[in-house]
Amino acid sequence: MKVGILGGTGPQGRGLGRRFAMAGHEVLLGSRDASRAEETAAALAEAGNVAGVANADATDADLVVVAVPYQGHADLLTSLADRLAGKVVVDCVNPLGFDKQGPFPIEVADGSAAQEAQRILERSTVVAAFHHVSAVLLDDPSVTHIPGDVLVLGEDREVVGQVIELAAAIPGARGVYAGRLRLARTVESFTANLIAVNRRYKTHAGIAVTGLDEGDA
Amino acid sequence: MKVGILGGTGPQGRGLGRRFAMAGHEVLLGSRDASRAEETAAALAEAGNVAGVANADATDADLVVVAVPYQGHADLLTSLADRLAGKVVVDCVNPLGFDKQGPFPIEVADGSAAQEAQRILERSTVVAAFHHVSAVLLDDPSVTHIPGDVLVLGEDREVVGQVIELAAAIPGARGVYAGRLRLARTVESFTANLIAVNRRYKTHAGIAVTGLDEGDA
Repeated sequence: MKVGILGGTGPQGRGLGRRFAMAGHEVLLGSRDASRAEETAAALAEAGNVAGVANADATDADLVVVAVPYQGHADLLTSLADRLAGKVVVDCVNPLGFDKQGPFPIEVADGSAAQEAQRILERSTVVAAFHHVSAVLLDDPSVTHIPGDVLVLGEDREVVGQVIELAAAIPGARGVYAGRLRLARTVESFTANLIAVNRRYKTHAGIAVTGLDEGDA
Repeated sequence: MKVGILGGTGPQGRGLGRRFAMAGHEVLLGSRDASRAEETAAALAEAGNVAGVANADATDADLVVVAVPYQGHADLLTSLADRLAGKVVVDCVNPLGFDKQGPFPIEVADGSAAQEAQRILERSTVVAAFHHVSAVLLDDPSVTHIPGDVLVLGEDREVVGQVIELAAAIPGARGVYAGRLRLARTVESFTANLIAVNRRYKTHAGIAVTGLDEGDA
């Protein structure tokens, strides 16, 4: 599959790009700054087929992942709405603020970043996924098993299934349906809890759903 | 330890009461209706030391778990604030609404049920925990391994540690610190996602944190 990544030079975008490429997908790594995207793509060349392009050109894919900071989220999607029409858009944006006590979820008028994306991209099918997989582990090619599940939220069962399949690109991870888009805020916000876990236990925590099969913790 | 449970005849309160008793704790199972509490306690007699009492009398414990429906949460805690002064109060209430698309988090003016409890119980130490462990599994004595972690949120590190220890009463479960009380809403709301998982996969799902040690999924 051809996968575009908006914000592909950030930690999450870069890490996902590496893993999608390692799994044999063709990756268009997008950035506001195409020359930065080219540099990052060159650094990922060992992983597989990765090209660095401007964000607008990263929409020339079967599926487009949105991995930009929340601050630029609405503006970027508004500017790309025509190009993204008819496509699957996977939002992994976590709207968080930070203060001296650490991260916390910030209010989003639409409920969640994913619902905001779906409102802006009315001709696209938006799915929320890939919020919790550690960027540090994703971007480390020596890590061959990334524990944890990819929670996938969306309205269209077939498209959710496609993203669950895409999650298999991350070794050790499993895509799990975790509700409709209106429940995405909880999943986006949970990233703040995982950062609290990371600080307390000095780790790169992830999340797994138990009770699905004999393989769980 | 002596553990009181407010709302001990509901599914979560009853299931936790069973497991705390099985682990050797003395359990005061509280209810609005003391005679119903006595009936439930009698049904749990095989598990260990369980007495059924009125909610007010269930506060005569070292630690008190709040497992009532959110609708009665604020009123009950307000009426018991004096009795709960100086105690550890563990809130496991999930403020959820239901419509034809299933459950969804409802707005809580204080941010979360746990923060509401802490505001009302200003002389108690409130911790949020035990939201996600399946009541069905808890209340089934033939289940000897309940996968999943108990996420524990609170401000007081020592008290959080006490609740993490209490979580070990649930076989297979592990208590994990998951942030300050201001991050409790996400954990309470996540119960809606788990219900979505249960419906899709026909299971009793739980949640586990990966990356803590070699034991994870």
